Amino acid sequence: MERLRVIIEGSGKHVHVTRETLDKLYGEGFELEHKKSLSQPGQFSSNQKVDIIGPKCRMNGVTIIGPCRKVNQVELSYTDARTLGLNPPVRESGDITGSAPCTLVGPCGSVDISEGAIIAKRHLHCTPEDAEKYGIQNGEIVIIRVEGDRALWFDEVVARVSSSYATYAHIDYDEINAAALFSDTIYGTVYHKSEFGIDK
Amino acid sequence: MERLRVIIEGSGKHVHVTRETLDKLYGEGFELEHKKSLSQPGQFSSNQKVDIIGPKCRMNGVTIIGPCRKVNQVELSYTDARTLGLNPPVRESGDITGSAPCTLVGPCGSVDISEGAIIAKRHLHCTPEDAEKYGIQNGEIVIIRVEGDRALWFDEVVARVSSSYATYAHIDYDEINAAALFSDTIYGTVYHKSEFGIDK
Repeated sequence: MERLRVIIEGSGKHVHVTRETLDKLYGEGFELEHKKSLSQPGQFSSNQKVDIIGPKCRMNGVTIIGPCRKVNQVELSYTDARTLGLNPPVRESGDITGSAPCTLVGPCGSVDISEGAIIAKRHLHCTPEDAEKYGIQNGEIVIIRVEGDRALWFDEVVARVSSSYATYAHIDYDEINAAALFSDTIYGTVYHKSEFGIDK
Repeated sequence: MERLRVIIEGSGKHVHVTRETLDKLYGEGFELEHKKSLSQPGQFSSNQKVDIIGPKCRMNGVTIIGPCRKVNQVELSYTDARTLGLNPPVRESGDITGSAPCTLVGPCGSVDISEGAIIAKRHLHCTPEDAEKYGIQNGEIVIIRVEGDRALWFDEVVARVSSSYATYAHIDYDEINAAALFSDTIYGTVYHKSEFGIDK
């Protein structure tokens, strides 16, 4: 079977907020300003930033990704989390129950969130067309290989298939650094775990 | 063939210095004080620290690893390097030609090093006994697998076999974070690249 070559994007720390949280941070009815479209359709980095306060420090100027969502979610790397003094779990986006608390501060106010800070689990967004072409199932755990000085095989990459996605893989900056993936466009090759016959 | 299960250690940023550099940083004839033995025989973390100055910042209190060596060497993660404003290459220990410059500062003086800052290449120290038992060649590039939430297969791990070594694998903290390896003792399993038959 032909293998999917996918563009890998590094996600820096960022924040998703609810409409209610944005009201408190930036004022009632404030609309996020579109700065740059992201690879996933409809998602954008905004001009708005918040400070994140954890037990160990205040981290300034973390970008809010729009549009507003149903839950507040703070996506950090372990490096960020250690700086803040937080201990977030590795989770898929949206799965925030029992994740780490922190405080978000905007120009109009602050919001204590009792949960919401996570380390994003590696994931592959996949269109239904690519999923069919490459035999990838929604929820399948795949392996993505990157080459170079610090070649790595990223295991435990969860594939998510949806017609609202574009096909891209997302990892964080600890993972980018671990694999020294610093070129403008980073490609990885997607393998099915069943192809790895070496655990026999 | 039986596979080697190896303890993986995360190396934080640290500095190796020459006798001459130590004279300048800590005074003529100063001897490093032994704080803690490291896994490799004869190597120790000392009570002595230096500041590292790069184009973007000064990093305080970086441990000197003893004993003195023939060359000055500063081992950083990409996270550290970016903080300092340095762009070091990925290198094996001792291979510092053309690596990044920086300034080391001790209580008695400072030393500008024109090269010496590197990102350490992942490596496996291996005793001749383990090398023979597990069929590992000196200089062989092996793959080390770690499991868990952020399971990874570290490719491009260089194996070094010597009777002066103990068998341990070393990675840096970007790599520790990427794989979420936070237990007290971390194990990985060593594979030969030839076992990976999936590139056919």
